[in-house]
Amino acid sequence: MDNKHEILELLRAVRSGATTPEDALLELKQKPFEDLGYAKVDFHRSVRQGAAEVIYGAGKTPEQIAGIAAAMGERGCRNILITRMGQEAADLVARSVPLDYHPTPRLGIAFPGERTELGHIVVATGGTSDMPVAEEAALTAEMMGNRVTRLYDVGVAGLHRLLSNLDPLMSARCVVAVAGMEGALASVVGGLVDCPVVAVPTSVGYGANFGGLSALLAMLNSCASGCSVVNIDNGFGAGYLASMINQMEGLQ
Amino acid sequence: MDNKHEILELLRAVRSGATTPEDALLELKQKPFEDLGYAKVDFHRSVRQGAAEVIYGAGKTPEQIAGIAAAMGERGCRNILITRMGQEAADLVARSVPLDYHPTPRLGIAFPGERTELGHIVVATGGTSDMPVAEEAALTAEMMGNRVTRLYDVGVAGLHRLLSNLDPLMSARCVVAVAGMEGALASVVGGLVDCPVVAVPTSVGYGANFGGLSALLAMLNSCASGCSVVNIDNGFGAGYLASMINQMEGLQ
Amino acid sequence: MDNKHEILELLRAVRSGATTPEDALLELKQKPFEDLGYAKVDFHRSVRQGAAEVIYGAGKTPEQIAGIAAAMGERGCRNILITRMGQEAADLVARSVPLDYHPTPRLGIAFPGERTELGHIVVATGGTSDMPVAEEAALTAEMMGNRVTRLYDVGVAGLHRLLSNLDPLMSARCVVAVAGMEGALASVVGGLVDCPVVAVPTSVGYGANFGGLSALLAMLNSCASGCSVVNIDNGFGAGYLASMINQMEGLQ
Amino acid sequence: MDNKHEILELLRAVRSGATTPEDALLELKQKPFEDLGYAKVDFHRSVRQGAAEVIYGAGKTPEQIAGIAAAMGERGCRNILITRMGQEAADLVARSVPLDYHPTPRLGIAFPGERTELGHIVVATGGTSDMPVAEEAALTAEMMGNRVTRLYDVGVAGLHRLLSNLDPLMSARCVVAVAGMEGALASVVGGLVDCPVVAVPTSVGYGANFGGLSALLAMLNSCASGCSVVNIDNGFGAGYLASMINQMEGLQ
Amino acid sequence: MDNKHEILELLRAVRSGATTPEDALLELKQKPFEDLGYAKVDFHRSVRQGAAEVIYGAGKTPEQIAGIAAAMGERGCRNILITRMGQEAADLVARSVPLDYHPTPRLGIAFPGERTELGHIVVATGGTSDMPVAEEAALTAEMMGNRVTRLYDVGVAGLHRLLSNLDPLMSARCVVAVAGMEGALASVVGGLVDCPVVAVPTSVGYGANFGGLSALLAMLNSCASGCSVVNIDNGFGAGYLASMINQMEGLQ
Amino acid sequence: MDNKHEILELLRAVRSGATTPEDALLELKQKPFEDLGYAKVDFHRSVRQGAAEVIYGAGKTPEQIAGIAAAMGERGCRNILITRMGQEAADLVARSVPLDYHPTPRLGIAFPGERTELGHIVVATGGTSDMPVAEEAALTAEMMGNRVTRLYDVGVAGLHRLLSNLDPLMSARCVVAVAGMEGALASVVGGLVDCPVVAVPTSVGYGANFGGLSALLAMLNSCASGCSVVNIDNGFGAGYLASMINQMEGLQ
Amino acid sequence: MDNKHEILELLRAVRSGATTPEDALLELKQKPFEDLGYAKVDFHRSVRQGAAEVIYGAGKTPEQIAGIAAAMGERGCRNILITRMGQEAADLVARSVPLDYHPTPRLGIAFPGERTELGHIVVATGGTSDMPVAEEAALTAEMMGNRVTRLYDVGVAGLHRLLSNLDPLMSARCVVAVAGMEGALASVVGGLVDCPVVAVPTSVGYGANFGGLSALLAMLNSCASGCSVVNIDNGFGAGYLASMINQMEGLQ
Amino acid sequence: MDNKHEILELLRAVRSGATTPEDALLELKQKPFEDLGYAKVDFHRSVRQGAAEVIYGAGKTPEQIAGIAAAMGERGCRNILITRMGQEAADLVARSVPLDYHPTPRLGIAFPGERTELGHIVVATGGTSDMPVAEEAALTAEMMGNRVTRLYDVGVAGLHRLLSNLDPLMSARCVVAVAGMEGALASVVGGLVDCPVVAVPTSVGYGANFGGLSALLAMLNSCASGCSVVNIDNGFGAGYLASMINQMEGLQ
Repeated sequence: MDNKHEILELLRAVRSGATTPEDALLELKQKPFEDLGYAKVDFHRSVRQGAAEVIYGAGKTPEQIAGIAAAMGERGCRNILITRMGQEAADLVARSVPLDYHPTPRLGIAFPGERTELGHIVVATGGTSDMPVAEEAALTAEMMGNRVTRLYDVGVAGLHRLLSNLDPLMSARCVVAVAGMEGALASVVGGLVDCPVVAVPTSVGYGANFGGLSALLAMLNSCASGCSVVNIDNGFGAGYLASMINQMEGLQ
Repeated sequence: MDNKHEILELLRAVRSGATTPEDALLELKQKPFEDLGYAKVDFHRSVRQGAAEVIYGAGKTPEQIAGIAAAMGERGCRNILITRMGQEAADLVARSVPLDYHPTPRLGIAFPGERTELGHIVVATGGTSDMPVAEEAALTAEMMGNRVTRLYDVGVAGLHRLLSNLDPLMSARCVVAVAGMEGALASVVGGLVDCPVVAVPTSVGYGANFGGLSALLAMLNSCASGCSVVNIDNGFGAGYLASMINQMEGLQ
Repeated sequence: MDNKHEILELLRAVRSGATTPEDALLELKQKPFEDLGYAKVDFHRSVRQGAAEVIYGAGKTPEQIAGIAAAMGERGCRNILITRMGQEAADLVARSVPLDYHPTPRLGIAFPGERTELGHIVVATGGTSDMPVAEEAALTAEMMGNRVTRLYDVGVAGLHRLLSNLDPLMSARCVVAVAGMEGALASVVGGLVDCPVVAVPTSVGYGANFGGLSALLAMLNSCASGCSVVNIDNGFGAGYLASMINQMEGLQ
Repeated sequence: MDNKHEILELLRAVRSGATTPEDALLELKQKPFEDLGYAKVDFHRSVRQGAAEVIYGAGKTPEQIAGIAAAMGERGCRNILITRMGQEAADLVARSVPLDYHPTPRLGIAFPGERTELGHIVVATGGTSDMPVAEEAALTAEMMGNRVTRLYDVGVAGLHRLLSNLDPLMSARCVVAVAGMEGALASVVGGLVDCPVVAVPTSVGYGANFGGLSALLAMLNSCASGCSVVNIDNGFGAGYLASMINQMEGLQ
Repeated sequence: MDNKHEILELLRAVRSGATTPEDALLELKQKPFEDLGYAKVDFHRSVRQGAAEVIYGAGKTPEQIAGIAAAMGERGCRNILITRMGQEAADLVARSVPLDYHPTPRLGIAFPGERTELGHIVVATGGTSDMPVAEEAALTAEMMGNRVTRLYDVGVAGLHRLLSNLDPLMSARCVVAVAGMEGALASVVGGLVDCPVVAVPTSVGYGANFGGLSALLAMLNSCASGCSVVNIDNGFGAGYLASMINQMEGLQ
Repeated sequence: MDNKHEILELLRAVRSGATTPEDALLELKQKPFEDLGYAKVDFHRSVRQGAAEVIYGAGKTPEQIAGIAAAMGERGCRNILITRMGQEAADLVARSVPLDYHPTPRLGIAFPGERTELGHIVVATGGTSDMPVAEEAALTAEMMGNRVTRLYDVGVAGLHRLLSNLDPLMSARCVVAVAGMEGALASVVGGLVDCPVVAVPTSVGYGANFGGLSALLAMLNSCASGCSVVNIDNGFGAGYLASMINQMEGLQ
Repeated sequence: MDNKHEILELLRAVRSGATTPEDALLELKQKPFEDLGYAKVDFHRSVRQGAAEVIYGAGKTPEQIAGIAAAMGERGCRNILITRMGQEAADLVARSVPLDYHPTPRLGIAFPGERTELGHIVVATGGTSDMPVAEEAALTAEMMGNRVTRLYDVGVAGLHRLLSNLDPLMSARCVVAVAGMEGALASVVGGLVDCPVVAVPTSVGYGANFGGLSALLAMLNSCASGCSVVNIDNGFGAGYLASMINQMEGLQ
Repeated sequence: MDNKHEILELLRAVRSGATTPEDALLELKQKPFEDLGYAKVDFHRSVRQGAAEVIYGAGKTPEQIAGIAAAMGERGCRNILITRMGQEAADLVARSVPLDYHPTPRLGIAFPGERTELGHIVVATGGTSDMPVAEEAALTAEMMGNRVTRLYDVGVAGLHRLLSNLDPLMSARCVVAVAGMEGALASVVGGLVDCPVVAVPTSVGYGANFGGLSALLAMLNSCASGCSVVNIDNGFGAGYLASMINQMEGLQ
């Protein structure tokens, strides 16, 4: 119902008598998704949003994940991302669907297939322990067909490590800055590059970091323009958005 | 020092004897900005970041604002944005530099000039009272050369108002979603469009909105992909980022 | 588009040739509201939601309020609630539309008219200073056609004051419990009555009440069943909901 | 002592000499509940509040739960809800009292019996992982004699899933909207229906959802009228309140 | 209804025929307070709670304050405390009732009269700026008939100032410790004396004191036994409680 | 050094030549406690503070607890309270010192001995699950020689359960009100009795209780006079303070 | 009493008969400060703490400030800092004591005199609007006899501005880093220099900076070693501590 | 690039022809650290910051820790601190590198070697349970070549314990004050000594200490000058800073 052209077609079919008004109403309300009982799998999404398919693993049983993945695979989906899935769940899912599993970001790729390497996205982290979130972002972007450069452990307390990696930063079309603790990486990177920066606060740290709140607030208050923020530890969201930006078509 | 080619040129000049090492060191440290005492005005920024110039009005005296704007204007800057400037300050500034002033977003345009209308950005608000923030975003984007469509008062409690404006939403290259209270606009818009959505929480509301915190948390937790968030009431930042995204060059 | 029967009628008109598909599409998107520029006034709301009309005064200029009220009045709306409107704004509005103004809850009734007194709603407060919020609730309920009993200053620190007013409480079809500070009124009332209790935390108090947070948390944690909570100081929302509940039709 | 008629009867008995003043005083203070040592079981509650009996399982040992349930069952209570009870505790309880156990919402029904299916309540969720809380609400409402329709996984990021389920929503007498993350479901549903909406924030999500706080604040700030909120994850409270509203008698 | 003996008397009167059951019921519900419309003035309180009368000035108009004070004075109340009353309000109240006004704690004493000086309470403050709250506590205690010693500006950063005032501290029956900022005074005093310490956090300070939250949390976490805490800036509550403790009767 | 008389005695000994100035200085600094390495056991405390001895078990190993208890026992201490000690630690401690262990409040009594039953303290709870904290308070008070009445599960949602226990409440010299969730018990009790009320918020509850914060804020904001608050779950502190108040000597 | 040598002298005087024990006791308790009623002015502080004198202006009346300053001046104090004093108060104070007033940091210097310029402290700020706090720090350090270099507006979003000022940073013995918003300056500076860094979060910013909380948390979580933090906007405290560190004597 | 002299040398080499401009550029960007893939080990740090080497163990696998330690040891580093490392990880690390392990602060010293004992640092704690954090501070300071005195369990609730240890406090060049709960130790110590005080809030405590927030806020609000604060439980940071301060060279 969210597509002007489809509605117009339907109305034309009603006028021509090819469809009764009652059937048209039914069709207007027909589900553009498959109802598995525990989930409504949305197959129009890749059309409507131009995105790779993704299954949020958190809060789903391995059986539910496998069921959704299988239903997608049957319809031809490839490189289906499964986020927040533990090793144990991955082992179970791998019994019924082909699966590449990455333990650090706890990410699976069901029905892995061909993919492109478009443009250039940099994923940078402040420290070693931000890697799980960064890998979630990097793999998401790669699965969606982007070329990704990883710059890990370039936090601002050792500024020379960041400054000696200016080349990939300067050539990126989008940078994902992943940092916990004081989250200053986003501000510093945002002041250096002239492309959009997607900041991901992580819950890494201790004491008064309050589960990522310190990095989140720091990034929201970043004094560099061109930065925006996704949720704490949301590597997937950052990779997805970076892919959208990297793959923007040029203005005519 | 943040430009590889400049350093290389400088080093070549040293080798050729055109520059002494001592002068080169000096030049490497030379300020790429003018020091007005109360501010270091950065004239390389538009080159380095590809951005229109902007003066953050908050916490500056009218005299300081006028001084910075005049220094920029002398160097040929046009359409200089001045944010968070009250009517009174604007009146004072207007005495010394040419100024278009917009009272709702408390925004001034110093040295107004020609500008382009590239691509298509939608700025949408949940309610009438989000307008000051939305206008800051819309005018920022317009000053940076973008075409902007305003969809105001299309909050999710009256879903039909949003759904009857699907055309501009569907054709946008970037949407700025401005909302206070429960901030649901970003989620709903994010689920409808297939372009990046920049969410701006506003401090509009009362009771347990805690100065915009409720909208901020809601937007960070948005279950729609492709959304990212800027600071509360940060219309400028959202307009700036939307312009960056809208004006992305295409992949070769 | 949110009404099944209207869509069906439209489709039938298409089939019969009375409407072209293009016109039908247009009509499907046609605005069920009037666009005043600064606001989209929603005239179908009273049909769709069964509610009296309301104008949220906060963040609107007196001119905007008067404009919206006049547009509503022209279409026959009566007893239009205007919330959060100061005395000064009320004076301005009263110049162009008929207005009853209540200064304590800062509430106006534009185009006042006849109204019914259905059922029985009790509005109770913990203290004298909760009155502005309570009056917003009580007047809202009255404007929507309900009979309202006010029980003010019956806070739990003087339990006998509450217990000596059991009769109206026991005969109510819905109770609105308005309290600041520790918000215990909702729990105690909720344990006494057998009808739904709508709790309204107020920002009344000092010290660690944090703008109503203490009462809000207390009410959310109420151990009495049948209680639910609206936003801090949201007298209007409570009165509106209480009216909905009071006017429920019986089960067949 | 909370019943006017009982006090009047008692006073009449004193006047007629059937009761001495001393005995009357004793009776006035007599416990309307049974004291099991660890709990004061309240048998008048179903009369006083018109509610099914409920045992809050959290913080009670299986032995205490079984003891209370048995005491209630002996007095003829049926369909006794036991909330927040783990599988292990349920196994222990099932040894001494008849018990239906639902593992997803961790809910038990002791002494299951006949029940009615009155009116119509919709329980909707934003995602699959809100199901435990939603089932607590749905089963509570069913045990209290209501007809319940479940609409799960209809979150606002895929608006078409919600819009294709308008029929049950439009015919509901009360809607329970269960959502975590940004909690926008309550606002959107509240804008579509014309019956009371009981919003239940869930602790589902990650990052800056802060254990349900993001959804809670969003729901409290909902710009739709007719919404109220219960505590985070409080499915029982929502189901109980929805039943109260659904079973309201009509006005004479 | 909160007095066993009164109920017994009433029941005896019913038995003897002196009162009808209907009248007894009425009397049981009869208000033990006078209803001024905007407030229910409770004249039994001094009997029931053994306290001086108090009028919370916050949120009341000068007219309401004067009205309540006059009603109390007519019934013989003396030394009526009026808290949180500004100079302007005090001037208005003083026109209709005899009033002693203390501008620092913004406290009035209506119908000032004779009073005793029982026992010994120490009111100590960390700094000069805690004086308004401390004076509210000290005057409250004095009005309730206690002897009060003031130890102001004895904060722990200059420990010798506290240690050179050990004599009054050691002889006190109760100490009120008033402090903002880090609130350490309560802990240190609590470790020195062997009487109850009532801690009053104040909102004095700046930066991360968050309106008194820092002192409040510090005092709640005090590692000294015998301390308890009242609300931020609640000098009245502390003075009232200190009086209760000071005037405890001895055990037989 | 905190005792005027001791200093005077010492100075007199210096004058008489019985002590050299150097020795006096040493003695002034001499430790009034025994240093066990991991703890400085304070044996003058019972004199200085009039309190039973207590060992805070949290954060100490069983060996450390046993060591401290043994050192105290050797000096004649009896009824030594050990707080926050798990069953396992208790078993270990019981091997070296005589110990009564109470598993619900996780409290041990080392070297149990005779004790008095002075005055009257009531410990009341809102619900069954507040019992661990309440028992910590009750046992602490009993160990310190007070008579204690327990009123458990008398929460305000079933007001009749509280009202039918007015007799012990009315005769108490101090009430400890223990409640989680909305913490209303303290306010209601505070309005009924005329003795000091020590409120103990508990972390019992779920959802937006935030580990006891809701009850804490509610109790701090209590509108009843005579209430003060101790830390969340601090049953020991409440029992200790209640004992202090109960055992106050009368004024001469 | 906090000085070992003084006590020893006193004891010797007692032994020699030059002082009676009673007088010694008195002297031990004698106030090392002058009691002005509203404040206890501490004249031993400059000896005991090696610090310039300071009067905290906040919460004191101009009369109190002038009184304290005059009392200090009479005893020979020079360069007395008066913090948080508005222009109006300064004008009043200047009538009775010699005063240099700095309006930006709202700081006064009473009885200005000679002062040294020891060592080297850098005070750096992220932006122009952090100047009031930075000036409070810089002037405090200067009044205490230190040489101070100001580096203002060198925030990390324009890293070249900071990097072109490495010389003064590298030669500093202590750096005071003053920044609002995301507070990244402290981390970046901390990673560059090898001297202690005192971080001062400022309340400058808007949106989710929550009065300086974002900068405070960022600075506490700084991943650079050698950083510590003072309270929000506490320029005085930072300048005082920097002076202490700068003037450390060398190890023998 | 952060060293003026190195750049000058390089430029001179370019002029003399000893280096080509291209090589110079390369050298300018050359990594002053070794890239182990999972970490960039910074070997210039001890030169640049004058610090002992440290490996943050949190979030690193034992293999990563051992790898980094081995790489450091090969280059001659000694007394390498490894923070936040559990016993199990320590056992694994000890298989490949020489290691002293301290279980209380969960701290390892890899390649232990000779060390000096310069100056005097006091590490004081409020209670026994603050020992893990205090030991992290004390061992860090010792590894960096400082003499350390431990004063444990000298909390302010037993002030005499602190006052009887004035000698080491008075002779310290820097004090690390470690305290949880109400954090008053820092204020009291800060008022006694005339050297810098580094305050470390700990997460020790219960109830409303909120993971160390109460102590953190108290310490930030300390009214004693010369205090600054590091992150909650950050013993390492405090020890590191105390060493920096203790080892300050004297002014010429």
